[in-house]
Amino acid sequence: MPSQSKSKPVAAGAGGELALLRTIRRRTAGAASSRLRLGIGDDCALLRPKPGEELAVTTDLSIEGRHFRLDWHPAQSVGHRALARGLSDLAAMGARPVAAFLSLGLPRELTIPGRKNQAWVDRFLDGLLALAAEHRVPLAGGDLAESPLAVADIVLTGAVPQGTALLRSGARPGDRIYVTGSLGGAAAELAALAKSPKLFAKATAPRPTSPHLYPQPRIAQGLWLRKRGRASAAMDLSDGLSTDLDHLCEESGVAAEVDASRLPIGAGATLAMALTGGEDYELLFTAPASAKLPRRIGEIAVTAIGRIVPANARRPRVSLWLDGKLQPLQPQGWEHFSANSTP
Amino acid sequence: MPSQSKSKPVAAGAGGELALLRTIRRRTAGAASSRLRLGIGDDCALLRPKPGEELAVTTDLSIEGRHFRLDWHPAQSVGHRALARGLSDLAAMGARPVAAFLSLGLPRELTIPGRKNQAWVDRFLDGLLALAAEHRVPLAGGDLAESPLAVADIVLTGAVPQGTALLRSGARPGDRIYVTGSLGGAAAELAALAKSPKLFAKATAPRPTSPHLYPQPRIAQGLWLRKRGRASAAMDLSDGLSTDLDHLCEESGVAAEVDASRLPIGAGATLAMALTGGEDYELLFTAPASAKLPRRIGEIAVTAIGRIVPANARRPRVSLWLDGKLQPLQPQGWEHFSANSTP
Repeated sequence: MPSQSKSKPVAAGAGGELALLRTIRRRTAGAASSRLRLGIGDDCALLRPKPGEELAVTTDLSIEGRHFRLDWHPAQSVGHRALARGLSDLAAMGARPVAAFLSLGLPRELTIPGRKNQAWVDRFLDGLLALAAEHRVPLAGGDLAESPLAVADIVLTGAVPQGTALLRSGARPGDRIYVTGSLGGAAAELAALAKSPKLFAKATAPRPTSPHLYPQPRIAQGLWLRKRGRASAAMDLSDGLSTDLDHLCEESGVAAEVDASRLPIGAGATLAMALTGGEDYELLFTAPASAKLPRRIGEIAVTAIGRIVPANARRPRVSLWLDGKLQPLQPQGWEHFSANSTP
Repeated sequence: MPSQSKSKPVAAGAGGELALLRTIRRRTAGAASSRLRLGIGDDCALLRPKPGEELAVTTDLSIEGRHFRLDWHPAQSVGHRALARGLSDLAAMGARPVAAFLSLGLPRELTIPGRKNQAWVDRFLDGLLALAAEHRVPLAGGDLAESPLAVADIVLTGAVPQGTALLRSGARPGDRIYVTGSLGGAAAELAALAKSPKLFAKATAPRPTSPHLYPQPRIAQGLWLRKRGRASAAMDLSDGLSTDLDHLCEESGVAAEVDASRLPIGAGATLAMALTGGEDYELLFTAPASAKLPRRIGEIAVTAIGRIVPANARRPRVSLWLDGKLQPLQPQGWEHFSANSTP
């Protein structure tokens, strides 16, 4: 895909991957965007941004056993989540999706239909392409290879008028800190599912109330913030508030104080999950105190959770007001599904 | 990278990957191009093509055990080859490299320095960044994750004036078929190395005479062809002439006849290697019979190897003149380093 034949295995049974490539090409044939001039079938895809636009580019690698478990996650969820991670990065810049690319390494058995089932890869594409259609982003290319382990690298490109992208580096002392939606819900859902893994198998269809299995990238909210020009800095919440806010402060050269009592904690989640659970794919942004922010953008809540303060070498970049005391909030990211972790 | 913190493991010993990210950021800090507005450190990189330009995008997945062997290939070669595959796709379109992105999944042990050695990943970056510097393409982002298996997905973006990219689809009956350089040399070198695997370890520095370990993407030749407007179609030779020419004919709706006696067979290679060895990363292109092509572009030979003929349902898309007879040339790609293959 652009390099349509790269890595096509031609060993015994080689027809499988060529057939898979044809399937992907057929399933993506209708997809188009005004900025995609050439999609799957040549050495590269060709994108044509409109005059005055920049292209945002992001890549996100998903690895079996680390970002998903084949024995837990429905293939539809794996495909949805892979694309959602990339879309969330575009949302954080206020970019409009232009085209997606997928590099997919798969064990052969995942390309073979089961007795009552489509092949895993077809269900993976079901999940990925449904979310792609929702955001009108064509799958424009990628690569295929046989692999002992399932790996999916998703590349997203998006368009943004020159000089208007939301960056991590613009937060200033006095700014307020905001998040969209709620935090910790993805970690809470995963913890609940891990207690009853049979429930995973039932979740083959996207639903907005499933923040772990079917996170909803905040494209519309990112576009709103970028167009209104009210945000001074923004990023997406993928590793957890404590880690991501630390990054935003580092890039902006500032520090932050978060008020625990104001955090919008997701259904079933604890404060710890909201602070460090990760994978919420909400937007974290800052805006001057004088900027007026609505309570909702679209249907998604916007909550002020703290403020930006000057950097100070004697204290951590991020602090938390809890029970009337200000305490350090160390970056503590989330852990994937590695063998030695409890999710 | 753009999403700099994505997939950063924060379990025991987590400092390793954050340190790796800092290493990459430090090593790529000097890299810049006039079309790269924002590199590593935010949710996305930002590219700004010049007015009237399109952006070419390609991804190439390299997987341990399939595209390289950790016990054979020097890390420098793995890094070089990963980038070379993507650059070769840009060359095939006549695009000028703008920025590269790298999604890297690595076992932890590959990030730890040995007694006398840099860590594997540092040597991998040595190889990748040396080739990147040669082609003035900055590493602008990507993703990092711990993985049981080493995987590297490389994304290349390149610029090309609107409507001028070399495509696979433009070949017409009567056109002549050309290749750059020589064919089969990569397969021959690999076969020789496989007989004496100790020789792999000595090849830690790029050399132009090592088509398997250090293939040279034909960027300059692709640019020449695109600017002069003499090629009717082009692609890069990654899977072997028999497979790749079949793809070019399929996309163009034509057939091809190759003259075996005219093939520029690489050092040590057989005719079979030249036809099906793969990984040559030379350019395959067509041009009208009236177009004048030089014998060399830069220092690289250009050889006419056959002609395009009308498609005909009763014969294969690609045929070979051999010993005065025209015989079918079936697509037969190359095989990677899978367990059940002899390279």
